[in-house]
Amino acid sequence: MIRNERGLLLVISGPSGVGKGTICKELESPDTILSVSATTRQPREGEEHGKNYFFYDKETFENMIAEDQLMEWAEYCGNYYGTPRAFVEDMLNQGKNVILEIEVQGAMKIKQKHPEGVYIFILPPSLQELKKRIEGRGTETPEAIESRMAQVTRELSYGSEYQYYVENDLVENAVSKIRAIMEAENAKVARCTAELL
Amino acid sequence: MIRNERGLLLVISGPSGVGKGTICKELESPDTILSVSATTRQPREGEEHGKNYFFYDKETFENMIAEDQLMEWAEYCGNYYGTPRAFVEDMLNQGKNVILEIEVQGAMKIKQKHPEGVYIFILPPSLQELKKRIEGRGTETPEAIESRMAQVTRELSYGSEYQYYVENDLVENAVSKIRAIMEAENAKVARCTAELL
Repeated sequence: MIRNERGLLLVISGPSGVGKGTICKELESPDTILSVSATTRQPREGEEHGKNYFFYDKETFENMIAEDQLMEWAEYCGNYYGTPRAFVEDMLNQGKNVILEIEVQGAMKIKQKHPEGVYIFILPPSLQELKKRIEGRGTETPEAIESRMAQVTRELSYGSEYQYYVENDLVENAVSKIRAIMEAENAKVARCTAELL
Repeated sequence: MIRNERGLLLVISGPSGVGKGTICKELESPDTILSVSATTRQPREGEEHGKNYFFYDKETFENMIAEDQLMEWAEYCGNYYGTPRAFVEDMLNQGKNVILEIEVQGAMKIKQKHPEGVYIFILPPSLQELKKRIEGRGTETPEAIESRMAQVTRELSYGSEYQYYVENDLVENAVSKIRAIMEAENAKVARCTAELL
């Protein structure tokens, strides 16, 4: 009998607009939990503490930084965002897989301390396709779109730091490939104890 | 678009009696080829050159050893057995996956020169179960069975040199797990070229 009692830490990155969020939601199950980020920004209407985010004030967040309670954190537009370690560790110890949907800088910080994680980079079928998707949202000016595409190019250059490429041509293909990766990772000798008696 | 133009070299080992042969046959497909071994033993009735084995005389085999045309070789009961490199390389270059069903010593020799291979160790559900299967064949004396079981224990100690454990509780489960491993391995960044333009 082969046992792997600890869940997988799945770190899923990729350029913005590639469809990470949809893929991660599809992967969610009783055994596979989406990590909940912490932030100091104000909750938007309908957002719930502990579900969409853990909402903290600045002082609490800075204490969490000081006490190394975050796996990674960053500041955007005057607000803090981060990944609380306790939630992730609890789930992994219970044998649940945990998904972190996270941009490349954060993923690289996590990789330094968690080489046992599974690092997956989601790719668009092509840059043209990605541009179309971002334009299709209709929420951004042409300049903003150009600036986004420049960022996409920077983000793509981190792909080689990951273990797996998954192309998001169709959500169901990407999800099925990630499930295969999870099955393979759970079969890794380094994660398993074989009990044969 | 993600490309991996080279096939996977799948090295499948495990204790004798564990069911490697049945699993490998199930994995065979137009894209996944079973490697054909070379030997100096006489063909048995119905065995074909190039299908069951490549049958060579001793001199030819020793020339192949001298010219490094074998990925590994060994001598058992006065006959040579080995894995011809050219066949495997041809298939991999054509983008076919190649399966080597091979005992642990041979697998370890191949691993030294082919770290890019995928090393899978098939486990029985339990040692008792394996003993039952070997006894079930009805071809061996109790002493031979004991000696086999001692060898199984030695072979199992090599498990940690492999990348993946696959339990052969049911052939279809083992085959499905190996297919997931192949899908994951083909998604590995180190094997892929991402073409995004």
